[in-house]
Amino acid sequence: MSRHFDAAAGLCEQPEPETAGFKLNHTMLRIKDPQRSLDFYTRVLGMRLVRRLDFEEMRFTLYFLAFLDDQQAAEVPAEDGPRTTWNFGREGVLELTHNWGDENDPEVAFHDGNSEPKGFGHIAISVPDVYSACERFETLQVDFVKRPQDGKMQGIAFIRDPDGYWIEVVQPDLLERQGIG
Amino acid sequence: MSRHFDAAAGLCEQPEPETAGFKLNHTMLRIKDPQRSLDFYTRVLGMRLVRRLDFEEMRFTLYFLAFLDDQQAAEVPAEDGPRTTWNFGREGVLELTHNWGDENDPEVAFHDGNSEPKGFGHIAISVPDVYSACERFETLQVDFVKRPQDGKMQGIAFIRDPDGYWIEVVQPDLLERQGIG
Repeated sequence: MSRHFDAAAGLCEQPEPETAGFKLNHTMLRIKDPQRSLDFYTRVLGMRLVRRLDFEEMRFTLYFLAFLDDQQAAEVPAEDGPRTTWNFGREGVLELTHNWGDENDPEVAFHDGNSEPKGFGHIAISVPDVYSACERFETLQVDFVKRPQDGKMQGIAFIRDPDGYWIEVVQPDLLERQGIG
Repeated sequence: MSRHFDAAAGLCEQPEPETAGFKLNHTMLRIKDPQRSLDFYTRVLGMRLVRRLDFEEMRFTLYFLAFLDDQQAAEVPAEDGPRTTWNFGREGVLELTHNWGDENDPEVAFHDGNSEPKGFGHIAISVPDVYSACERFETLQVDFVKRPQDGKMQGIAFIRDPDGYWIEVVQPDLLERQGIG
């Protein structure tokens, strides 16, 4: 029996024991203005700020955000050090990097990766109901790349964060119900 | 009591109930050659392929990978449809997008986001022991941006995936022990 769930060239069937305990901890995006981005990620999307790390000498701040329900939030250590350890020991973290002064520099704008030169595409959030989530995003005047009712991929949406990064909005059971996945 | 764990301008203290159940599902990166990337992510890092979706008409394939221990792997549905739903309902997923033919096109190379135009910075894996993980990466001839013993940030490493994307390698308790976090 394969340790993978679909076939593809290049897959390694013998997991090396040295990789035990590895986790996909976070994704890092540079942001221009932390106030603007924190408003978006905490008010519009509902994330919580788990840890903020200021590096005065190097003049940057890191903001670590996660989706936490009340039970998960109750597990977060109150003390700074243990909270840092907790932050790096879990999956599903978003790291926003702010270089001080970028918010006041008209030259600074970040590249979303979806025009040349391409690379990174998007982060994705899964939501219980993509249509009601997107109606709320409309009301909050979120910028859409693709609405769930548009195009070939019905029920999948893409919105933009304040720096222009794409965020896919997906409802877990919908692809299966539509016979896509 | 704040629902956040550090202070910052822009934070929303009133979570909107409509955001309940939102999760940070995946991060998408474009890749040139799936065989090369799947070898790296499954052999070198130890991830598993959870779902592969082929879109013949649009000539691309999506590969969804995750770190799963044996217990988590036992929860993955065997049937394709339910497995798709499972894949989109969790956190910590990496989506690799392959546009067919890119592996044979010498013009195709992807941008890592860390030179101009900047944007996306990296994904990060957390590991139980960053020094032994990085010794193994050396043995496997992984390309390093920064070794854990180099530079100011002792104990933090950055490696490159086959397309050049940066992957931070971090040990959760080390920042706290070093008094950084």
